[in-house]
Amino acid sequence: MNMQSMSLKFNQKELQILDQTLLPFEENWLTVKDPDHMFSIIKTLKVRGAPLIGVSAALAMALYAQSENNAELFISKARYLRESRPTAVNLMYAIDRLIKVAKDNYSSDAIMSEALAIYQEDIELCEAISSHGAKLINEGDVILTHCNTGGLATAGIGTALGVIHKAHTQGKNIHVYVDETRPLLQGGRLTTWELDKIGAPYNLICDNMAGFVMQTEKVDKVIVGADRIATNGDFANKIGTYSLAVLCKHHGIDFYVAAPFTTVDFECESGEQIPIEQRRPFELKGVQGHFGQVQWAKKEGVSVCNPAFDVTPAELVTGWILDTGVFDKESIKTLKVKG
Amino acid sequence: MNMQSMSLKFNQKELQILDQTLLPFEENWLTVKDPDHMFSIIKTLKVRGAPLIGVSAALAMALYAQSENNAELFISKARYLRESRPTAVNLMYAIDRLIKVAKDNYSSDAIMSEALAIYQEDIELCEAISSHGAKLINEGDVILTHCNTGGLATAGIGTALGVIHKAHTQGKNIHVYVDETRPLLQGGRLTTWELDKIGAPYNLICDNMAGFVMQTEKVDKVIVGADRIATNGDFANKIGTYSLAVLCKHHGIDFYVAAPFTTVDFECESGEQIPIEQRRPFELKGVQGHFGQVQWAKKEGVSVCNPAFDVTPAELVTGWILDTGVFDKESIKTLKVKG
Repeated sequence: MNMQSMSLKFNQKELQILDQTLLPFEENWLTVKDPDHMFSIIKTLKVRGAPLIGVSAALAMALYAQSENNAELFISKARYLRESRPTAVNLMYAIDRLIKVAKDNYSSDAIMSEALAIYQEDIELCEAISSHGAKLINEGDVILTHCNTGGLATAGIGTALGVIHKAHTQGKNIHVYVDETRPLLQGGRLTTWELDKIGAPYNLICDNMAGFVMQTEKVDKVIVGADRIATNGDFANKIGTYSLAVLCKHHGIDFYVAAPFTTVDFECESGEQIPIEQRRPFELKGVQGHFGQVQWAKKEGVSVCNPAFDVTPAELVTGWILDTGVFDKESIKTLKVKG
Repeated sequence: MNMQSMSLKFNQKELQILDQTLLPFEENWLTVKDPDHMFSIIKTLKVRGAPLIGVSAALAMALYAQSENNAELFISKARYLRESRPTAVNLMYAIDRLIKVAKDNYSSDAIMSEALAIYQEDIELCEAISSHGAKLINEGDVILTHCNTGGLATAGIGTALGVIHKAHTQGKNIHVYVDETRPLLQGGRLTTWELDKIGAPYNLICDNMAGFVMQTEKVDKVIVGADRIATNGDFANKIGTYSLAVLCKHHGIDFYVAAPFTTVDFECESGEQIPIEQRRPFELKGVQGHFGQVQWAKKEGVSVCNPAFDVTPAELVTGWILDTGVFDKESIKTLKVKG
């Protein structure tokens, strides 16, 4: 069985991962040698996107199981790989599933089967989210999105960008505005590359141009992803999402969030309980990547504020596009009862 | 008489201009040799800010008049310098004043006197704007600003940033949030430098973080500059200004615009009549400056939208801080009658 998605190739003998640090200029596929190599690939951000990291790690462990007969050694290696990205919940979740199988009944076939299930489930999650979401997209819609939430972030078609991808594939004429998404430029660097691949028309804009575009052009919908959804519908996502939600309210534009149901945190009753991580100051004083590195603000003296995420309150959300269906302000309240 | 502002030094024998392209890393003062040199300094953006360009050009022409006895040749050189930055209205205005003097009664003293008047008037304009604005600032205020509108954009203390500077000088404890202002990074590169010089505390943020800061921190006021004000109070300013105005409305934060009365365009009845210039695509595909150059989006294929300005409707403005006084939504209507 050959499986291939935008950023993964897998045939049960070999796992190849698209090196995202080289995009959009170079498409280089890395052949994963072993779990240590996978650890380094995750650590160096060559693979990114929480779902994609989880799937990649599971597949790497499944290949490792083919040459490792000892369950204890397998589990030990799995635990090591689990620590490669401490904030990636999907990574822990995927590895824990493999460890459980290893403990119950270790065999290379059982591990491979579980890893393939994890891969397949992510594809199906994306497919369900995208299909539900695409029903909301009308012919001629202009859609604005933020960050990267497509085939470079998941093993499948994506979440928010998956909805756009699906609608485009269905033959709907849509146009996309892509926020560049400072400071890490996932929109400018990755979403543009992905929309080029898909062949969907778009314009790249700076984050501060979203208001102008809404004011002067036709924008029908904004669709973004989510890192964490509270049971009242508030959600955390890439910094800049909240500003977009406010701009949508002012302009009467529909604002959707697309994510797997697993993003709902049942321990979290509202957005106020979501802590916001402050990232390192240097990200605001310049840019850096495989494309090069420059700095325009002084290293010393310049104080910055660099929140990784912001929280958008449920009241600003038109609909929550989950794999389990589209929720509105009324039905989202049913989240309180664990699905 | 020695005159010195943040970015100009003049003693009637010599004009020195701070090279803004080297900021914030290097403070290099250029001695202006002649009008051709001034032309090149303007052309290469070593001096920026419409008021500052006008004053610099006038002073350069005043020095030139000291060694040029022929009014016709002076006027010809002045007309040449007038074309160094075709969009800078202040430049044309300053040069036209010198040409008028040259036509009426050419002498080096008369030209020097007029150039010094232009310089002095800009300082006084800034002083009046800043003084009016500073009265609105309360002890402990947190103020967010956009782009650079201070001593690096004018011959005086500035407009929007001048208000902040003045309030700080008056001993009010204020804190500033500085938008980095993509794509040209005037906030990240210049306003941070200027606030460091002034000694006012601040945090640099990405443009997409303004909503987060308003939602989670105390923000009392947003103050921005203006490139053009219509007689109904609508105004054009650096891209991103409109989004800030919408965010202010949502959060109940006062939104002020600070500019000289000469910014009012009496031919322009509303913001709808203000054309928005689209700047070159490469600005969105990377960054470049004396600090270096990188590009993270492909040169070919990536479509961009790069408006230089946006228009904020009067209904979103709390007050217009002009040198002639502070106008509110009612009194701004009196603008229709030319002051």
